[in-house]
Amino acid sequence: MKIDSVDFYYLSMPEVLDIGDGSQDALLVRVAAGDYVGWGECEAAPLVSIASLVCPMSHSACKPVIASIIGQEINDVNDIRRIGNLVRANSLDLLQADHTLSGIDIALWDLLGHRLNEPVWKLLGYKSRFPKTPYASVLFGDTAAETLQKAKSIAAQGFRAAKFGWGPFGLSTVEADCDQLAAAREGLGKNGILLVDAGTVWNTDLDAARARLKMLKEVNATWLEEPFVSGALSEYHALSLASGPVGMAGGEGCHNFHMAKHMVDYAGLKYVQIDAGRIGGITISKDVADYAVAKGVTYVNHTFTSNLALSASLQPFAGLESHTICEFPTELKSLARAMTKNHIVPDKAGLLHVPDAPGLGIEPDFEGIAPYLVDVEIRVRGKQIYTTPELR
Amino acid sequence: MKIDSVDFYYLSMPEVLDIGDGSQDALLVRVAAGDYVGWGECEAAPLVSIASLVCPMSHSACKPVIASIIGQEINDVNDIRRIGNLVRANSLDLLQADHTLSGIDIALWDLLGHRLNEPVWKLLGYKSRFPKTPYASVLFGDTAAETLQKAKSIAAQGFRAAKFGWGPFGLSTVEADCDQLAAAREGLGKNGILLVDAGTVWNTDLDAARARLKMLKEVNATWLEEPFVSGALSEYHALSLASGPVGMAGGEGCHNFHMAKHMVDYAGLKYVQIDAGRIGGITISKDVADYAVAKGVTYVNHTFTSNLALSASLQPFAGLESHTICEFPTELKSLARAMTKNHIVPDKAGLLHVPDAPGLGIEPDFEGIAPYLVDVEIRVRGKQIYTTPELR
Repeated sequence: MKIDSVDFYYLSMPEVLDIGDGSQDALLVRVAAGDYVGWGECEAAPLVSIASLVCPMSHSACKPVIASIIGQEINDVNDIRRIGNLVRANSLDLLQADHTLSGIDIALWDLLGHRLNEPVWKLLGYKSRFPKTPYASVLFGDTAAETLQKAKSIAAQGFRAAKFGWGPFGLSTVEADCDQLAAAREGLGKNGILLVDAGTVWNTDLDAARARLKMLKEVNATWLEEPFVSGALSEYHALSLASGPVGMAGGEGCHNFHMAKHMVDYAGLKYVQIDAGRIGGITISKDVADYAVAKGVTYVNHTFTSNLALSASLQPFAGLESHTICEFPTELKSLARAMTKNHIVPDKAGLLHVPDAPGLGIEPDFEGIAPYLVDVEIRVRGKQIYTTPELR
Repeated sequence: MKIDSVDFYYLSMPEVLDIGDGSQDALLVRVAAGDYVGWGECEAAPLVSIASLVCPMSHSACKPVIASIIGQEINDVNDIRRIGNLVRANSLDLLQADHTLSGIDIALWDLLGHRLNEPVWKLLGYKSRFPKTPYASVLFGDTAAETLQKAKSIAAQGFRAAKFGWGPFGLSTVEADCDQLAAAREGLGKNGILLVDAGTVWNTDLDAARARLKMLKEVNATWLEEPFVSGALSEYHALSLASGPVGMAGGEGCHNFHMAKHMVDYAGLKYVQIDAGRIGGITISKDVADYAVAKGVTYVNHTFTSNLALSASLQPFAGLESHTICEFPTELKSLARAMTKNHIVPDKAGLLHVPDAPGLGIEPDFEGIAPYLVDVEIRVRGKQIYTTPELR
């Protein structure tokens, strides 16, 4: 069957706040082929990804993403990779294309799962799915006292692990960060898995990151995530040599397989964190999972949006029994909850199970989505090249 | 003084052909501060970069690029780096942002050059500019016979060097590529510098690239450019070990300093090719030039658009006496010529001189531009967030 249509829906909270919360908007993707429909999601900057879908061609290696999608045959999983390769070649000089492709790739896996009546993780070659230990993913409080309350609340909800990130962390003094870390550990209790996300706050400043290592060790942090931007391979590596039991974690900024491979090869990572909504979808995420296994690095999903994105982000390592930690955002804005009819929730033992329904196992909720749908129109030379499509 | 405005102008040929010619459209950037104006250019996908300039915020690390520009103080060159760092932090998750920033960074250098009455290369710290040996940059002909004619014509124009790229090269048989290479060498004459650009055609296929090495050596090619995508560091490195006198060249796909550094560090490059319109502007290009000097790699500009972009791409290595080869596109579409009042042309000895007028030394030609200006309108929630500004 051939791909008949690709629809992009820009969803947003009525007001987007200047905080590190990625669930405030979303770009929902619908792909239709024959009698089947698949849903996906691109991470961040919906308007820009819409523009990259439909923009006029600049030259032969800078085509709109849609030019490599519509009319393509989609019958088995090899077609998804072929289509991804087409996009990467035809849109080589269109920087945004990797993010745009990501949501389409995810939707194609969902579509094929429905057609073949299999969950995506089976289509990826896994025979079984293994439960994951979700970490509650939250922002640091504005104060250490607020962080303490957040941590207590997470522990009370039965989570075995929590990640604190962004907010004021790394922006003021080492002492202030120590207070934040101590509060997180205290609230979580002695046995909780504590993860820390610096959100690239030190860019490439090795000394600033080093100054926090002592306290990270004291609070027994399992990992320090994104002390630097993704490209700072030598800084990551240098920090890893001094970080002892605190593992380096990073990779969410990678927008192709090569970038993730470089982080595994050169950055001294213990955990490679991949956002399926950015790196080129489930296809490339699975490539990274395979590479991580081969290199003895632990794969972790990165996701901070809806449960559709969460399911997509879990599929690539669903069958890796020893890669247990998974990101599970718990402070989602109402939009990210309302988007889907069903949700992925931890069981009584606090463990998360990748859906075993066909495709991604997550159904969009049109009634829930409608209030958040953003009306967009793009006109070039007087001709409308994009308008928000009907939900269908 | 403060930055008062940033205007993006989308220019295009009436018809854009499906060929590897990047001069078919352009995104012209105007920045105004106090009494001064600077001009720059972003490479490729104008509509997408426009969207990334003005899109609604997704979260604190995914802001529209303009949010980090308007109102910023711009008094000396340190401000340009500070503004670039702001964009990279505030638009961390907006993939297109590096391309968008590039044109703004270039315009800021031009603006400051006008204010300080100095050419940009002096502001970059160079005391002198040195002449460059331009290579005529053209596409391979559809047939070897056509390539032969192109090469003869280039030699007749007095060029000492020529680069052939894209077109059919690498897409069919090794024999066909050998014919193309032989034709290029024959037309250029024995002493001409012959450069070959594979345009990432082999993606990561080391064997396909290796199969062309023998012929590249036979025709005495100075470099093989982009046999692979920019991220394929280990493939580049493996090929470099077998390429003998044929140097590896690459880097145009890099959209930040780190990617270029990785290519220098890990890919076995002899020539690092940087597009100032993609990597984050003149600021980051100069960082790469400095790094290349430190590592014994030769810096080369990448540019395939207007003479404004050409001047911007030459500034970062204007003062490097031994880095002589420079890209000089000679098959520009009418748009790319009409855009500017003055042009950079080789002297009688066939050498190119970086302008020594203030700023970039290139003046936009409003009358020339007007016929190519593309009318764009973007509306979000019924509100117009972008419309093509008046040329001023």
